[in-house]
Amino acid sequence: MNKHMQPSEMGAPRVTTGPLPASQKVYATSQYDNDVQVPLREIALSEGASKAAIRVYDSSGPYTDNEVTIDVEKGLSRERQMWATERGGVELYDGRHVKPEDNGGASGKHLAREFPVRNRPLRGITGERVTQFEFARAGIITKDMIFVADRENLGRKEKLEDAEARVASGESFGAEIPVHITPEFVRSEIARGRAIIPLNINHPEAEPMIIGRNFLVKINANIGNSAVTSSVEEEVDKMVWAIRWGADNVMDLSTGRNIHNTREWIIRNSPVPIGTVPIYQALEKCDGDPVKLTWELYRDTLIEQAEQGVDYFTIHAGVRLGYVHLTADRVTGIVSRGGSIMAKWCLAHHKESFLYTHFEDICDIMRKYDVSFSLGDGLRPGSLADANDRAQFAELETLGELTKIAWDKGCQVMIEGPGHVPMHKIKINIDKQLKECGEAPFYTLGPLVTDIAPGYDHITSGIGAAMIGWFGTAMLCYVTPKEHLGLPNRDDVKVGVITYRIAAHAADIAKGHPAAQIRDDAVSEARFDFRWQDQFNLGLDPETAKDFHDETLPKDAHKVAHFCSMCGPKFCSMKITQDVRDYAATLNDRELGMAQMSAKFREMGEEVYVDADAVKAEKDSNEAL
Amino acid sequence: MNKHMQPSEMGAPRVTTGPLPASQKVYATSQYDNDVQVPLREIALSEGASKAAIRVYDSSGPYTDNEVTIDVEKGLSRERQMWATERGGVELYDGRHVKPEDNGGASGKHLAREFPVRNRPLRGITGERVTQFEFARAGIITKDMIFVADRENLGRKEKLEDAEARVASGESFGAEIPVHITPEFVRSEIARGRAIIPLNINHPEAEPMIIGRNFLVKINANIGNSAVTSSVEEEVDKMVWAIRWGADNVMDLSTGRNIHNTREWIIRNSPVPIGTVPIYQALEKCDGDPVKLTWELYRDTLIEQAEQGVDYFTIHAGVRLGYVHLTADRVTGIVSRGGSIMAKWCLAHHKESFLYTHFEDICDIMRKYDVSFSLGDGLRPGSLADANDRAQFAELETLGELTKIAWDKGCQVMIEGPGHVPMHKIKINIDKQLKECGEAPFYTLGPLVTDIAPGYDHITSGIGAAMIGWFGTAMLCYVTPKEHLGLPNRDDVKVGVITYRIAAHAADIAKGHPAAQIRDDAVSEARFDFRWQDQFNLGLDPETAKDFHDETLPKDAHKVAHFCSMCGPKFCSMKITQDVRDYAATLNDRELGMAQMSAKFREMGEEVYVDADAVKAEKDSNEAL
Repeated sequence: MNKHMQPSEMGAPRVTTGPLPASQKVYATSQYDNDVQVPLREIALSEGASKAAIRVYDSSGPYTDNEVTIDVEKGLSRERQMWATERGGVELYDGRHVKPEDNGGASGKHLAREFPVRNRPLRGITGERVTQFEFARAGIITKDMIFVADRENLGRKEKLEDAEARVASGESFGAEIPVHITPEFVRSEIARGRAIIPLNINHPEAEPMIIGRNFLVKINANIGNSAVTSSVEEEVDKMVWAIRWGADNVMDLSTGRNIHNTREWIIRNSPVPIGTVPIYQALEKCDGDPVKLTWELYRDTLIEQAEQGVDYFTIHAGVRLGYVHLTADRVTGIVSRGGSIMAKWCLAHHKESFLYTHFEDICDIMRKYDVSFSLGDGLRPGSLADANDRAQFAELETLGELTKIAWDKGCQVMIEGPGHVPMHKIKINIDKQLKECGEAPFYTLGPLVTDIAPGYDHITSGIGAAMIGWFGTAMLCYVTPKEHLGLPNRDDVKVGVITYRIAAHAADIAKGHPAAQIRDDAVSEARFDFRWQDQFNLGLDPETAKDFHDETLPKDAHKVAHFCSMCGPKFCSMKITQDVRDYAATLNDRELGMAQMSAKFREMGEEVYVDADAVKAEKDSNEAL
Repeated sequence: MNKHMQPSEMGAPRVTTGPLPASQKVYATSQYDNDVQVPLREIALSEGASKAAIRVYDSSGPYTDNEVTIDVEKGLSRERQMWATERGGVELYDGRHVKPEDNGGASGKHLAREFPVRNRPLRGITGERVTQFEFARAGIITKDMIFVADRENLGRKEKLEDAEARVASGESFGAEIPVHITPEFVRSEIARGRAIIPLNINHPEAEPMIIGRNFLVKINANIGNSAVTSSVEEEVDKMVWAIRWGADNVMDLSTGRNIHNTREWIIRNSPVPIGTVPIYQALEKCDGDPVKLTWELYRDTLIEQAEQGVDYFTIHAGVRLGYVHLTADRVTGIVSRGGSIMAKWCLAHHKESFLYTHFEDICDIMRKYDVSFSLGDGLRPGSLADANDRAQFAELETLGELTKIAWDKGCQVMIEGPGHVPMHKIKINIDKQLKECGEAPFYTLGPLVTDIAPGYDHITSGIGAAMIGWFGTAMLCYVTPKEHLGLPNRDDVKVGVITYRIAAHAADIAKGHPAAQIRDDAVSEARFDFRWQDQFNLGLDPETAKDFHDETLPKDAHKVAHFCSMCGPKFCSMKITQDVRDYAATLNDRELGMAQMSAKFREMGEEVYVDADAVKAEKDSNEAL
């Protein structure tokens, strides 16, 4: 089922393909546009389930589609490029030449192999509309908007009342979650700046997705090699692996050499939006010395990455010269890499940040490719002690000011947030973000709600992430168990992604998303019916669930057993409940006296432990061996 | 350092002893009573730290004290029995004889070995005060109250203003957390029913601890063999292992054979309170058939366990005949084992539950030994779909009624809670509990905030646990990764305990506990100073943190390196911040012009990457090997 680590030519990244257990990729044709087909994962349920299958959101792209042949050397299909060209306003051009410094001067055996295919880039024609934001403001619904509308609805066909009840039962803190998402709703949310579709016109390999408070909460996984460790191959595989488990976005945070070539491999093979922090690469181009950074060098890096198809840029334009000293008394100073680079530049030159002074120029570049802003929180707190302090909030106020400029320039914007925040300060933080930034989508790292658990920061931050997601954060940047300690490996990436899927889903439920709880209810029904395989398959990680079960009860027969190893065969509470249910059906027999009721129930309840003795005997005889 | 799995005689449980890294057990003598010495763990910090050591709460008992010789065959010291005998009102007596059915009729090689030492039990003399609640109501401060007051203060000596600031910055939702805990405050909280010290007079091996909304949030770990798997030895080791990582309480949920003997080994070796669900053992005594349960059989089991020293009993007296049918339309019916047993009994006999009709008799037994009530939530929801429904709340209302009866009878009471609750329904649940039960301590299992992640339910429930702890829950019952799938092993117990320590600590911080954030700040300072060893040692799991760090940077030299593998040596944001700090100190030099400021900063900031090249070269040469 799972073609682990597809074999491939020497030097090309090997990646994991094939569907998850009991799952297949389905494409639902939009009711609004026949050209638009939305990928979903359909999980088949076994006999006895109330539904034959459950459809869930699927960000894993063609890698989990058995009908698609994956060739990492060629990249994914680019046919959705037509969507951009058909709506007009864009042109193909030759693009920038790759320079040695784009790969940190790596050469010979140290230079990562170039991606084999070269595409000419698209850019917006001056004076024409390019961005989703511009189309939305003009009242135009793009195919991408239709795609995300259908995607958010999860292809469900259910009674409207059920969806309405779920929306009504939630607490959304002023969000406006509709019972059914229409393309027009998507358009209006983008036009208001409350949602973005991060999708560079040069990344047609990506399946459109939306980030906004009134949609499903999304999660991001960070990958990227550093100067100390990891390779191109590992990074491409980490991207595929991260989306397999549910990452909606991936950020490539590579530093060191080979940044350009690594990124090209990742983007050409990525069905999800890719974000970067361009200052990291710019810094590599000036030997790692922040003082040598210039606007010209940075601008060139933006164009380089925009042409490659990066979907959003983290830009720390809120780290102003006048804010730097506000961090001096902090317990952990400046912990953002981008923030500290810009702080050093500002102090060394004693000038206002060039990201701030050139902000309109940056907007002009990003608009041309529809690269979305992810306004970075360079002064975010690195510890509970520094949470919600003046430095953090001063920067946030500036991000609000920049948001409005970017909107005026036609760009899509989201806002990054912390970090480390104790539970009682989380709501204060997001409420301020919503207010200062006109409800632009919030995109937070965690936050961690305590600092005392290095090695478990996926959990310390998963708690904060679930809460801030509920309060209105649109995308949650994952944290892995290795946070603060080392670079995540494959296992860490998976644990981080699944932890954040839990947080995002818990938030969707609490907000009252109309479709979220359908999957929970399916798991619960499977649990109650002892459909073990369905319980595993409906979970976020079927393989781990099955392995855990099999540790104590490995036999196939136990997968249909009406008990589990926690209680054992004599003691199952769920089994007793079935009698109660049968019994309740007779409760209208009010004419029965207590004695008769008792007799009737005893008759019904007799078969509770029918297979207990047999199973126990088998267990004992196994132990005796 | 860690004498892993102490060798011992054949048949006796082997347990893990020795302190955690850089830690030693210290005993702080109470300022209120010289007889009272409170155990704390002192974590030594390395040179450069602002403090020489940090003291943390320590529930691990003598097992982590290098000065104490552990002999599992003898059990822990019983000298604190004097505290009960000195205050009077109790008598030694012969106690009940152990019957074959106490061990489920196990015999020969199937019978677990008896604990080698037999102690005569204590009980209250009719008409005299026995329970902490009775002493508290009479205005008497017991030694146990003094002990827990000192324990909650963590032996800290800090400026009162700092503690006051932390209390003031928290959001406690109407709790009344003092800046300094006095014995009188403990007494008054117990007298009001807002806190309990679960401590059977027959469990002098235990170190007193307090459970209440205005104290540190506590956690419980469940252990226990089932009919399907595990042995006495494993269970004793799991108890020691669970408290090593921070469990404040342990519940022995054993079923099947050998329940009596397993429990005796656990209690005699346990420095933390032990809870049980007596109906489990009662059921074993009537061949697992709930219909055959009788009050007499149950009463005898209560006395058996009270004489052994069980500190609290889960009693599902709120599952009334009239409530059972309320569960019929649920997605997951009745999921509590105790609840389903009683539901079946009620229906089969068509009578009110004998736990409800004999509730005053139960109080009379429990009062004699000061066994605390943990009023069970037999109708708790087993899925999000069933959360906060009529069945759950009907039972909760009855638990409120029973709480008042138990108080009138002189007993200590806490209330159990769910289970599975989406985030937006958690506060509603605890607010109702506080109201119905007169602020008696709430003790919840999780709750899980989504049902879609079997294999990760420590995380789905850790989110809910942190939140409900913040809202006022006094003790959190852990959930391990094996929940719903199998019985937890040693590793699962550790992960469950650490996840719940995270949740409890995050709650303490958010509530504004005066001492909680001290440890976070110490970790953050260590992180900022690149004192890697201190960061590991101050964490909840030093070994895992160190292992994760060593995966990418294993050399000892890297433990003092001023960078980590996430950023690499050229890119460390924390290092840059140190320059900012130096710079800020010069900011009052306002007469300096921008150019001079710039020159001055450049001079200061020059040494940022001093060892970067050396480390990079070393790394490259390692890779070349």
